[in-house]
Parts: sequence; C-alpha cells; structure tokens
Amino acid sequence: MRSGDEGAAEGPVDRPAGVPPERRSRRRRRRHAHPPVGASPGTLQVDPEAHPSRIAAIGYGPDEFVAKDPIAFEAIAALRKRCANVWIDVTGFRDVGLLERFVEQFGLHRLALEDIVNVQQRAKVEDYGEHEFLLLRMIDASSAHETEQLGLFVGAGFVLTFQERPGDCFGLVRKRLADGAGQMRRRGSDYLAYALLDAVVDGFFPVVEALDRRLEGIEESVLAGRSSTAVVHELHGVRRCLLELRRAVWPLREATSSLVRGETRHFSADVRPYLRDVHDHVVQLLDLLENYRELSSSLLDLHLSNVNYRLNEVMKFLTIIATIFIPLTFVVGVYGMNFEWMPELHVWWGYPACLLLMAGIAAVMLWWFRRRRWL
Amino acid sequence: MRSGDEGAAEGPVDRPAGVPPERRSRRRRRRHAHPPVGASPGTLQVDPEAHPSRIAAIGYGPDEFVAKDPIAFEAIAALRKRCANVWIDVTGFRDVGLLERFVEQFGLHRLALEDIVNVQQRAKVEDYGEHEFLLLRMIDASSAHETEQLGLFVGAGFVLTFQERPGDCFGLVRKRLADGAGQMRRRGSDYLAYALLDAVVDGFFPVVEALDRRLEGIEESVLAGRSSTAVVHELHGVRRCLLELRRAVWPLREATSSLVRGETRHFSADVRPYLRDVHDHVVQLLDLLENYRELSSSLLDLHLSNVNYRLNEVMKFLTIIATIFIPLTFVVGVYGMNFEWMPELHVWWGYPACLLLMAGIAAVMLWWFRRRRWL
Amino acid sequence: MRSGDEGAAEGPVDRPAGVPPERRSRRRRRRHAHPPVGASPGTLQVDPEAHPSRIAAIGYGPDEFVAKDPIAFEAIAALRKRCANVWIDVTGFRDVGLLERFVEQFGLHRLALEDIVNVQQRAKVEDYGEHEFLLLRMIDASSAHETEQLGLFVGAGFVLTFQERPGDCFGLVRKRLADGAGQMRRRGSDYLAYALLDAVVDGFFPVVEALDRRLEGIEESVLAGRSSTAVVHELHGVRRCLLELRRAVWPLREATSSLVRGETRHFSADVRPYLRDVHDHVVQLLDLLENYRELSSSLLDLHLSNVNYRLNEVMKFLTIIATIFIPLTFVVGVYGMNFEWMPELHVWWGYPACLLLMAGIAAVMLWWFRRRRWL
Amino acid sequence: MRSGDEGAAEGPVDRPAGVPPERRSRRRRRRHAHPPVGASPGTLQVDPEAHPSRIAAIGYGPDEFVAKDPIAFEAIAALRKRCANVWIDVTGFRDVGLLERFVEQFGLHRLALEDIVNVQQRAKVEDYGEHEFLLLRMIDASSAHETEQLGLFVGAGFVLTFQERPGDCFGLVRKRLADGAGQMRRRGSDYLAYALLDAVVDGFFPVVEALDRRLEGIEESVLAGRSSTAVVHELHGVRRCLLELRRAVWPLREATSSLVRGETRHFSADVRPYLRDVHDHVVQLLDLLENYRELSSSLLDLHLSNVNYRLNEVMKFLTIIATIFIPLTFVVGVYGMNFEWMPELHVWWGYPACLLLMAGIAAVMLWWFRRRRWL
Amino acid sequence: MRSGDEGAAEGPVDRPAGVPPERRSRRRRRRHAHPPVGASPGTLQVDPEAHPSRIAAIGYGPDEFVAKDPIAFEAIAALRKRCANVWIDVTGFRDVGLLERFVEQFGLHRLALEDIVNVQQRAKVEDYGEHEFLLLRMIDASSAHETEQLGLFVGAGFVLTFQERPGDCFGLVRKRLADGAGQMRRRGSDYLAYALLDAVVDGFFPVVEALDRRLEGIEESVLAGRSSTAVVHELHGVRRCLLELRRAVWPLREATSSLVRGETRHFSADVRPYLRDVHDHVVQLLDLLENYRELSSSLLDLHLSNVNYRLNEVMKFLTIIATIFIPLTFVVGVYGMNFEWMPELHVWWGYPACLLLMAGIAAVMLWWFRRRRWL
Repeated sequence: MRSGDEGAAEGPVDRPAGVPPERRSRRRRRRHAHPPVGASPGTLQVDPEAHPSRIAAIGYGPDEFVAKDPIAFEAIAALRKRCANVWIDVTGFRDVGLLERFVEQFGLHRLALEDIVNVQQRAKVEDYGEHEFLLLRMIDASSAHETEQLGLFVGAGFVLTFQERPGDCFGLVRKRLADGAGQMRRRGSDYLAYALLDAVVDGFFPVVEALDRRLEGIEESVLAGRSSTAVVHELHGVRRCLLELRRAVWPLREATSSLVRGETRHFSADVRPYLRDVHDHVVQLLDLLENYRELSSSLLDLHLSNVNYRLNEVMKFLTIIATIFIPLTFVVGVYGMNFEWMPELHVWWGYPACLLLMAGIAAVMLWWFRRRRWL
Repeated sequence: MRSGDEGAAEGPVDRPAGVPPERRSRRRRRRHAHPPVGASPGTLQVDPEAHPSRIAAIGYGPDEFVAKDPIAFEAIAALRKRCANVWIDVTGFRDVGLLERFVEQFGLHRLALEDIVNVQQRAKVEDYGEHEFLLLRMIDASSAHETEQLGLFVGAGFVLTFQERPGDCFGLVRKRLADGAGQMRRRGSDYLAYALLDAVVDGFFPVVEALDRRLEGIEESVLAGRSSTAVVHELHGVRRCLLELRRAVWPLREATSSLVRGETRHFSADVRPYLRDVHDHVVQLLDLLENYRELSSSLLDLHLSNVNYRLNEVMKFLTIIATIFIPLTFVVGVYGMNFEWMPELHVWWGYPACLLLMAGIAAVMLWWFRRRRWL
Repeated sequence: MRSGDEGAAEGPVDRPAGVPPERRSRRRRRRHAHPPVGASPGTLQVDPEAHPSRIAAIGYGPDEFVAKDPIAFEAIAALRKRCANVWIDVTGFRDVGLLERFVEQFGLHRLALEDIVNVQQRAKVEDYGEHEFLLLRMIDASSAHETEQLGLFVGAGFVLTFQERPGDCFGLVRKRLADGAGQMRRRGSDYLAYALLDAVVDGFFPVVEALDRRLEGIEESVLAGRSSTAVVHELHGVRRCLLELRRAVWPLREATSSLVRGETRHFSADVRPYLRDVHDHVVQLLDLLENYRELSSSLLDLHLSNVNYRLNEVMKFLTIIATIFIPLTFVVGVYGMNFEWMPELHVWWGYPACLLLMAGIAAVMLWWFRRRRWL
Repeated sequence: MRSGDEGAAEGPVDRPAGVPPERRSRRRRRRHAHPPVGASPGTLQVDPEAHPSRIAAIGYGPDEFVAKDPIAFEAIAALRKRCANVWIDVTGFRDVGLLERFVEQFGLHRLALEDIVNVQQRAKVEDYGEHEFLLLRMIDASSAHETEQLGLFVGAGFVLTFQERPGDCFGLVRKRLADGAGQMRRRGSDYLAYALLDAVVDGFFPVVEALDRRLEGIEESVLAGRSSTAVVHELHGVRRCLLELRRAVWPLREATSSLVRGETRHFSADVRPYLRDVHDHVVQLLDLLENYRELSSSLLDLHLSNVNYRLNEVMKFLTIIATIFIPLTFVVGVYGMNFEWMPELHVWWGYPACLLLMAGIAAVMLWWFRRRRWL
Repeated sequence: MRSGDEGAAEGPVDRPAGVPPERRSRRRRRRHAHPPVGASPGTLQVDPEAHPSRIAAIGYGPDEFVAKDPIAFEAIAALRKRCANVWIDVTGFRDVGLLERFVEQFGLHRLALEDIVNVQQRAKVEDYGEHEFLLLRMIDASSAHETEQLGLFVGAGFVLTFQERPGDCFGLVRKRLADGAGQMRRRGSDYLAYALLDAVVDGFFPVVEALDRRLEGIEESVLAGRSSTAVVHELHGVRRCLLELRRAVWPLREATSSLVRGETRHFSADVRPYLRDVHDHVVQLLDLLENYRELSSSLLDLHLSNVNYRLNEVMKFLTIIATIFIPLTFVVGVYGMNFEWMPELHVWWGYPACLLLMAGIAAVMLWWFRRRRWL
C-alpha cells in the first residue's frame, strides 16, 4: 500500500531552493499546458515531466478483498471477473498509451481523459451514459499548498481514479475496505465513489486550518504593533493560498450540488444523503475561505493603520524637537554675530538674560504642543 | 432547572488570561476538528475536552407537565409513554456512547448526529423522513461573542435538542411550559420546536445591540478626533465579531426560508406564520449586520482621514517654523563669519539693519503662508 | 386634523443637545428592543417611553365623509355601520390594552400586532386571510433623518394604520377624501391603502433630495480645495443617512414587488397598475441611493487626494527652503570657525567671494528643482 | 424639420457660467420634482420652467408621406384618417392641457403621462392593453452629458413621442421616412417604434466614446507622471458621467429584454430580431461603462501611486541633503565656539584637518545612502 | 495557406512608435465606429481603413479535400456543388459589396452582417432559422493583446467565417482537414464549427499565460522590494489587459452555455459533449482572469505597503539624525555667542565639559530611540 511519504520523498527533488512554496506551485502548474491550439479533441499530450504511471487495484465484495499494488494492466480483466466491485487507481500520466487502453477497456469518453491529463481543469461532474465522470482537485499530499488533479469514473461495478501525482488522502478508505468493518464492502461502487469524494473534500480542512493558524500569527504580530514588511509578505502569501483554494473548491460546489439534485443515474438514492453531507462540507469550506479573505483584508487595514500611526509618531517627534531648537539656534546665532555695535553683548546680565529668554521660548513651545495634544 | 450561570461558572476555567475574547473563541473552536480524513460517515469522534453529557427532560400535554433534570436515559421511555409530548435536552458531547443510544431509540440518522458532534457546522434543515433535523448555531450564554452548536430533532411527539455547552437561552420557554399559560402546552412538538428556534434567533439580538453600542463608542471617539491605535484595534474586534455572527446567521436564512416554503411535513400549516416571523427576524439580523459592516468601514475611512489630517497639521507646523527660521539662521550665520573685510560689521547701524532685515523676511514668509491658507 | 407640527413640538423634548441628528436617531431606536428572548409570540411589550395612543377615524363613501379626531374606541363600530369604508388611524403605542381590543374587533393576527409594536422591523407584506398586512417604514415628519414604523391593515371596508409617532405625510390624502374630488371616495379600501402606500414612498423623495443637496455642498467644498475635517464628518453623516434609508427602502422593493405580482386577493385588478407605479418609485429611490453611495465614495477619494496633494505641496516647500539654506548655513558656519590659520579670512576678496559662492550654490539648487518640476 | 441646433441655441440660455457641466445637469434635474406627497395619481404638475410645447406630425404609408411641423392638435385626427400610420412628436411639457387632450384622443393611461411629465424616471416598458408604453432616457442633443426623458406610445397605426426638450437624435429616421428608401414606410408603427428605440440607444455611443477619449487623456497624463489636481478633478468628472449614464442605461436593459422575450402584443414577430439587436447594443453599452468604471479606478490607483512616489522622492532628497549637512554644520559650530582653551584652533593643520574630517563624514553618508539604494 | 506572419508583416505599419501596446489597441478600436445614429438596420458602413477583403475556401467530404486561397466569389457555387461541406473564410471588411453578395447567396440575415462589420461587438449566438450565427472575439494573431472580431455562420453543408484582420489561430484545423486524420472530414459542418470555436477559445490560453508570467515578474520585483514606478505601470498594463480579455471572454460564457443547453438545431446531439468541453474551457478562462485580477490587486496593496515602508524608513533616518544633531548644534551655538561675561568660556575645563555634555545628550537620544524600537 502506498503511503504519502513516497510522494513526499519524490516531490522535493525538482524544486528550486529558496523559492517560497506559493510561487513554486504556480511555476510547476504552468508546465503542463494545453494541447496546441486547434488540436483534435481528445488529444492526449505526452508530457515528459509528468510522473511515471503506476496502477494499483483493489477488488472487493461483501466477503472478499483483494489488493494488488502495482498491478499489470492485463490482470485487471481477471480481477473484475472475480470481484463484485473493483477500484483501479492510476497514478502519474506519463504513459499516455496506458491511459488509452483504459479508454478501450472501460469505454471511457476521450474528452474526459483529455481533461484529466490536461491538469489545471475546473472540478466538474459529467454523465457519459455508461459511467459518471468526476473531475476534482485534491490537496497534494506532498505539499501543504498545492492541489493536484483527480479524475474519477464510476460505473457498474468499478471505480477508476486517475491521480496526477503519487501520494493521496485515501489511506483510511483503503483501510476501511481492507478491514471489512462498516458498510463499505456491502455496498456498490457508488458508495466507494462517495467515500473517495468525501476524503477529497475533508482533505481541504487541515490546509484551511493551517491558514487559520497563519492568520492568527499575523494577527498577533499586527495587534502587538510588530508590523514589519515580513507581515505583509506573509499576508500576501495567505491571500495567494486563499485564492488558489477558492479556485479549487468553488467549482466543487456546483459539482456536488448537481449530484445532490440527483441529476445522475449512477448514484443510488440511499447514497444521496451522504452526498448532501459532502455538499454541506464544501459549502462550509467556502464559508471559511470567504471568512479568511475578509479577515486578511481587515488585517491589512490594521497593518496599514499601524504603519501610518508610527509615521505619525516619528513625524511628531521630529517636529517637536526641531521646532523647539530651531528658534533657539536662531537666537544664539544672533548673539554670535560680529557687529561692533551690539550693546547687549557688553552688559553683564546679557548672557543670563539670553538664557532666560531661550528657556521662555522653549516653555511656550512645550505648552503649545501640550495644548494641541501632541505630547 | 439549569441556569445560564452554571455555564458561566464552568466556562472561564480553561480560558487563558490576557487574550481578547474574539481570539479566544477561535482558538477553542479549532479544538474539535473533523474526524480523520477518509473516516466512515457517521463516525462519532470522542473528544476528551468536550463538556460532560447530561440529560434533562420535560414531558407535557394540555393538562400535564413533568420536568426532570437530570434524568437517566432509561427513564425516557417511560416519560414518552406518560406524556403527549417530550422535550429531551442533552448538553455536552463527551459521552459518545450515550449519543449512540439516542440513535437507536429515536431512529435518528447517524450523519445528523455526526454533524452535531463535529461542532462548527453551518446551520441547515434536513428532512430524514421520520423526523426533521435542524442544525443551528446559538449564542453561547456564557460569553458574549461565541456561538455554540445546537442540534434539534423534531418528530411525532418529541423534540430532541443537543447542546454543545451548558447554558442556553431557553429559560423563558421552559417557564412558559411550566406555567401552562399561552397555547404552548396545547400544541404539538412542532410548536415547541418553533419556540426554541425563535429563542435561538432572538438570542442574537442582544449581541448585535452590544456591537451597536461598541460601534457608537468608536464613532464618538473618532468624531471627537481621539483616533488612537486603540480605536483601530476595537474596530478590528468589531469586524471580527461581525464576520463570526454573519457566518452563524447567514445559513440560518436559507434554513428558515426552506421551512417557510413548507418543504417539510413536520411543521403543521398553522405553525407556518410563526416560522415566517422567525425568518423575518433572521433577515432583519442580516440587515443589521450588513449595516454595521458598512458603518465600520465608513468609520475606518473616517479614522484614516483623521490620522492623515493630523499628520498634515504636524507637517504644516514644522514647515512654517522651519522655513521662517532657516533663512534667518543663515543671515545671522553670515554676520558671524570672521572675514577681516566685512564693512557691514563696522558701521553703527549694522546690527539694527540686520534685525530689521530679518523681521522683514519673517513678515514676507508669514504673508506667504497666509496667502496659501496654511495659517 | 393632526398636523406635523404637533409631532415637532413633542419630539425635541427628549433629545440631548449637541448630538448630531444621525446619532440621536440611533440612540432612540434602540430603546424599544425586542421582547425578552423566548417570550410567547404575539407578546405586546409595554413601553413606557412610547408616545401616548390616540385614535382618529374617517368614514367615507361615494357621497359621505365623516372625520373624527380623536374618536373613542367604542364609537368605531357605529362608524363602520354608517359608512361604506372606514380608515382608523392609531398613533402611539403606549396603551397596549387599546391595541389588543383592535385584535378582537377586526380579527387581526397577534403576530402582526407584535411586529408593529416592536419598532425597527423590516418592511413586509403578509396575507392573513381576512386582511392584508403591510409593515412599512416612513419618514418621521418631525425629523429629516429618522424613519418611524407604520403598520397598515386592509380588509373589506376598512383600513387600519398604526403609526409609531404623531405627525405623518397623509395630509393630502385626507384632503382628497374630504374634498371628494377625484376617484378616491368612489373606490374601495384597497385604493385608499394604495394612496397611503404611495404617500409613504413619495415621502422619501424630499429626504433623498436633501441628501443630494448636502452632497452637492460637499462636492463644491472639495472641488474648491476646502477639504477640512468638517467635510469628512459631513460625508460620514451622509453615508449614515444613506445606510439608514437603504435599510428602510430596500425591503419595500420586495414588498411592493409581491403586491404587483398579484399574490394577494385584497387589492383588485384595477388597482394593480397603481401599485406598479409605486413599485417603480421604490426602485427609482434605490437607484438614487445607490448613486449617492457611489458619489460619496468618489468624493471621499477626491478629498483624500486633495489632502495628499496638500501634504505634498507643504513638503515640497519645506524641502526647497531647507535644501537651499542648509548648505549655505554650512558655508557660513565654516567661515565662522575660529581656527588661527584660515587664509581665506584675511584676503580682502574673501567675503565677496564667499557671498558669490553661496549665490552660485543657491542658483544650482533652484535650477535642479526646476528641472525636476518641483517649482 | 427640426434640427439639433435649434435645441443647442435654446439650451445654454439658462446655464450659469463657470459651473462644470456635470454639476449643472444635476442642478437642472432637481427642478422638476415629484408632485406633492400624497397627491392624486395621474396629477400633471404644471412646471413653469418646462420647455414650451410644440407638436410635429408625420403621416406615412407605403406610398405616402406627409410631414407637418408644427401642427395644430385639431389637425391630427384628419392626418390619422388620411395615412396608414402617424408619428406625433410632442416636445416640451409646459402646456399640460395639451397633454391631457392626448389622453382623451388616444386613450392613454394617465399614470403613463404622469411618468412622462415627472422627468427623472427609470426606463421601463408597460403594456396598457390598447397601446404599449416605453419610457426612455435619451442623450440631450444640446449637451454632451445630460439625458432627457422620452415617452413613447405605440398602438395600432400610431406612434406618439413626448420629448422633454427640443433637439433629438431622430434626424435620420425622419429622413428615411421622407426618402421612402428601405422598408420603413412599408412596415407598421411597431417598426417605427423600433427605429426610434434603436436611435435612442445608438445615441449613447458617441457620448461613451467621448468618455473613452477623456479617460485616454487622463491615462496619458498619469503615465507621463503629470498627476496634478486637475487630473483628479477630471477623473471625478468622468466617474460622475459614468454614474449618470449607467443610471440611464441600466433600466433599459430590463426594458429591452422584456421586449425581446415577446411579452408584448404590440411588436410583431418579424420585428423581434431587430429588438434583439437593440438589446445587444444596450448590453454592450453596459459592458463599456463597467469597463470604464474599472479603468477609472485603476487610473486613480495609478495617480495615487504617482503622488506617493513623488512624495517619497521629495522626502528622500530632503533627507539626503539634511543628513549630510546637519552633522557638518555641527562640526563647524564646534570650532566656532569661543572657549579660551581649544588647542585644535591654534595648530596650523587644524583647519585643513577639520575640512578633511567633514569630507570624510560626507563620504561615509553618501556611501550609506548608496548602499540603502536611496541614491 | 495563410500564415500568422502575413498578418504580423502587415500589422505594424500603421502603429505610432513609442506608444505602449495596450493603449495602441484602444486607439485602433475606436476607428470603426457605429453607423450613424438612426441609420437603417443592416447598413454596412464602408470603412476605408479596414483590411482589404480576401476569400479562401476549403471543400471537404469523407474522401475529398479541396483548398483554394484566394478564390473568386464566383467559384464558390461550383465548390459547394462538388463537396459535401465547404468552409469559406473571408478576411478583411473593406469590400462591402462582396459581403453583400454573401447575404444573397447564403441567405444570411443583414443584421448579422452588420454586427460583423461593426467590430467591437459582444460575443453572441443567434439562430436565424436557416443558419446559426456566432459572433466571437478572438486573439489577434499579429499581437499579443488585441482581439479581433470573428463572425461564423454554420448551416447545412457550409461554414462561413468573417475575420476582421488577416492572421488567425486556425492553422491546425486546416491541417487536420488536409491530413484527413481523425473524424473531422467524416463529420458535418457543425463539427467544423465546433473545431473553430474550440480553436478560438484555446487561443486565449497562451495570452492568459503570458499575463501570468508578467504578474510573476511583478511579484518577484515587489517581494524583492524593487517597487519602482515601472512596477505600477506594468501592473496597470496587466489590469488593462485583464479588463480587455474579460470583456472578450465573459459574453462567450453565455453564448457557449446556450449552445450546450441545446437551444439550437444546427448542432447535432453528438457534437454537444464537445461544446460542453468548450464551455468548460471558457469558464476556466474566466476563473483564471478573476484570479489574476485579485492577484494584481493584492500586488498593488503589497507595492503600496512597500512604498509606505520605505517612506517610513527614510523619515525615521532623517528624524534620528536631525533630532540628535539639532540640540547639539544649539549647544555649540550657545558657546559661539560673543557675550563679554560668559564665565564658562574662560575656565580650562570648559571645552572638554562641553564636549562631554554633548556626548551625553547624544547618548540619551540614542537610548530613547532604541527604547521606542526606532533603531
């Protein structure tokens, strides 16, 4: 059974050092671009940087459970015959030929497969007659910020998942199948599809909570008056993550909503309440993201107000010091002049009188500042 | 009969000192997270920090009223037989086993119970055939800012409420049941459910009015020109509360609206006008929250404008003082030079002429400032 | 016949001096709060600060007109028998017992009356079978900024209005009834209800136009560069009024729209075009309010830009003066030093050369400022 | 045939000099206010400042064309008998009596006429059984910024237009009728109504393009760094125009959309594609206005950033000059002191050493500024 | 076969030098204005600056392929007879007469042709009975920022495209037709229309990705603190492009959505899934544009915060230097005064004491700055 660590071990290899994770993800994203403009629909673009392909399969029924990882493509047909339901999980899209063999064997629609391979799609649900197609974005297990693409086909007796990269959030689902506890083995492939969809949606929550913690840290800094440039950069990073997540989750809302409305034949009526539950979670996610977006903009306001306040403080201090000493410096300059006829210079009380005058000027100034509440 | 004070006595124990209440509530919220990603639906997560569970029950009919607090689970069945309607009120979710016994006895849907236990859900209404399920957020009686979760099941002859924490806003409802005045005892469980829903919604108004008072205080400070950092922090606190409240109330709108549209069988037609009234209150709450949001952003603008204005004042003052004295200081510096050949120094009118010159410069400067309306 | 002056004479008594009208209205508003959380629906809260109750009645038919102000409650029944249509106008909600007698006599719904008495409701339209209930907010005749609550019941042969405070905008409607000109007397109670609704909506226009004038005054100040703090406070006041008005008018849109769609039996088909006209006016009001909101935010931008510009001007002036004289002051300081060996001091051309040098420095500075377009 | 120049000749008479056009239009607008609050519906308010009324008429059929300008009201009936279709064009609303005669002769609805006379209405379409009523706002030919009101009735064989002020954009429509080219004469009054509606909508485009040119001018100034106060005022003017235009065009969208949906009997099915074309133009106008709104807000950001940048520049310059010379001035001050025991003053290398010291300080400062990238 | 280079060679001729591309495009856009206000519908305006017209044609069927570029208008009829499907591609709208001949031969609707010629329309889909009309905006191959207009008619056996300027993104579609690979030749004209629509939509992606790269460059600059004016100008340029693109793509959403809903007869049911795919791409484009818009506004905030921060730094530095030296300069000024009776001047420890005093003042100042965390 694959673990998330495998993906983590593989992932960091091709990452440039010293680039913040938010930006790295964008750079990688752009690599797998669309097929050339005007290309035939269903064209599967060979992407040499895609992860190598690998198939894992689980066959199960009320009383049986077979897990093979990896499994050869040829062995799938036998597994389908043996078990009531099979879950084929394909990871990595480098071997385009392999993907095309699935098209034939399971009668998939080429456009769906093109959507899967051209990562960066919006989540959607489509009914292709023989099977239902769900295109989802899920949190990449090897990173806290990136999402990877997941294609899911559900038909009579099978669930097919196509993951962009190794590492996923389906560990517990596999365990529930293996343990045979609960109702999962007794129910059809639609229930398994629901369980996977649920895991994808729930996988967003830890990431959202990490953002919550980051925002809380920022808030603490800002409220304590420690508003450095680092705070703004951190805030910008959070806003980017929020944008990214919203882009991933928003279309899910539409997709799960259409499942709940029962516009599809591939999910039985007794799975519907579970789908409604998933839909509620998606809406809750969006609520949280919206909340954090407003919170982050409130924090930015707070930060700017802090910065403004400090500028004010600095300027007030400068003004007080300067406006007290500038007139005094003028006075001492006057009595530093070398005119021959300056009677004040020649009386014995000239110097003390001058000092008193200056003290008086300073006192008036201070009184004035206090009256204006600058002190 | 339980009082709100009980909750207040228990609540503050686990609160860190010196943290503003808005942030404390977030921290606590995060504790009860989702069940592990991929877990079986309906999994009731045991949360050791949850409040201990306690059952209270009220049985009533047109001519009878029985209140037991606490009551053992086993005694509930007898009470149901004796009275036309029962209201079972469960507080605290620590005893997961107890909750599961309710699933069996009242035929509740496991997903609903999972939603209740995983606090931080959105308000919603769902029809599970045998009973209607309402998930609500209500103001935590032991705090002015936090909301707690309330699950409410209404079926034939029973109302079940599951509260996250002790202390609630149902005191008057209990009193109305005990007094037997009004129509409450004569009507069915749907009317009781309405009365509880109404109390939950009305419970938001005092909190909203407290925000109104806080905003008024801020406005007074800002209009009086006392725009310190404290004002901005207070404003930020209000905005957080508004966000929190909106997140709690917004989904209520949808939920009550579906009740008003009569999409459920569990509320009889003559309760519908009352539900419409509740719905109107929810919409009014949202109006107020929206209003305060706009008001708070207008106050922020006002504050920033104040700060800007004061910076302007300070700078103008500095500029006036500096630009008057800097040239004068230059002049006195000139006549402080030690050149041998400086004829001005040796005539008797040199000093008075110099003073006159400087007075003239100052006068011209002042005239210039006045013309530019800086004075 | 009551006049608006009566309200004006009574109103100011309880107003604290020196508080701007916008804030005063909020303070008063909060006084009549909701009934206690969890209270029985239809509870009429006795509010000792409410205006004393007073009943006025007008009975009319194609050929008759009877106006009694005040009228005793007991005389109403006789009037109803005598005239085809009656309009009972109740002002002030202090006498809760009186209101409850209306519930009995006219078969009103208690929830509707609770809504009326708990001022600060949203406008709405509800069909209670025997009668239609309209809850409206209308401009308080004794003030230019506040709105008061108006409840209106229309049934077969009667219109009941419940006004929060004395003084209203129905003078012309009463006059039209008294004069018997136009079609008003010939038509039923639904037409009278329309006429009152129309008067309420049209009553907002003068207030909105006053805001328009205030905004124009602000714009004039800002465009003329007179952007003082007073301008910002005035702008804030306008924004508060806009918020208040929008809160009052927005729900009216929904309410009148439901009347236009003909979802009620109490307005006959030939009154519908008139209701459509009222609805159009409501939408126009909202358009204007939205317009003014955007205008006020554009004015705030303009003001901030003005303030910024002036700060820039001040700083530029300071910089020019300071950077010209600071180097010069340094130069004169150099020749004010008391070193024994300073040959420049002892030549006859030392002083003029020094003056020339300084003139040169100043000229270079000025040229530099001009090149940078600071002058 | 009337020309736009006639309106232009008349228009400027009552304009106060020196007021920018945007504000002038608001002032004029307010003059024609609503009828008194509570007045009878359909009351035609006599406005002494309204333009004098004047009727022009065109009768046409496939083979005939009669144009009379001006025409007496009495001659209209004869013209209607003679021609298949007539277009009566009334300009100026001063003669209320005349308008009321149209009510009788053409069976118009009084509410529609009230809407026409009370200028400042929203555009709308209403079906009054016998005729369709369109209320539109069109660009005032005598000004580039203002809109005037146009009421249009279309019934069997007639089109009535009521224009607030002389001067319109129907010149080409008249010419097409007179020339007899195209299909206009062969088709019914609905086609003429479409042609007029099309002219009204197309009349907005030149105004919008003028705004585009103004925005382009502003952009050029801002990008070139010439961000004076004039730019902000100009930007504010553009935003006001955009608000005004959007307020005029937005309701048109709804109105034309209802025409396209075919909710009216007065436009035949073969005119529908043309109406769809008009609707597309309205939507395109709104797109442009929205675009310009966003552009203007982006320009404001750019301007503010410019202003900020320049303030920064000025402050940096001041700081550099001041912080270099302030320490130097201190040093020369030290050696200007008159202490008897100051050994540095009496050695021959004192003066050059002091100059070197000061050069060193200045060099360090400059190096520091360069390292911080302030230079 | 035409290439994009041809367009590129022609394009730059009429471009003024030194104008950024974003603004150039607007200038050009305005040239082709609407026909005169009130003109007959379907009027084809002769635009002397339009590109010269040129026809290219491709005829194809399952087993045939004929490409003629250019082709005379007279040869089209023969080609239609010979091949099952023809694709006529007209570039440049200068020859209005030629366009009108298409109206006759293919029975096009004049309004559609007017829309095509009056560039700057919104994308739309209209069903004119005999044929479907699609009005699209596509990226101009000769520029990275501009869009040109594309009109597309699809009917039984023919596809007509009208391009505003030479150069397009249909190269691969032509190649697929020529190669005969895939299903394109075997399917009808609706499939070709889909392929062209798909190419138009996919043509936006490279442009959007270029914007992504520009934003990434800006982000890098801003995060590195290199926030010059150039950054703001670049950001403004990106925002303009985003506005332009959104204006082009947004209406496409509606248009493709109506195709997907199957409101047209001209696309067969088996082409529908492909149209749904195109629609998904359009929605994805809009998602990206919205994302970039928010990102660019976040970057602007970041930039402004940077600028603010730097101003703060500069001011703090000035304040520290000035407030340390201004009092010291005052002190040295005092002992530069020429009073006869100044005892401090005549003691031997006067000078060192004065220096010590000044060192003390400076130390206190520095301690104060450090306590306030300004250092």
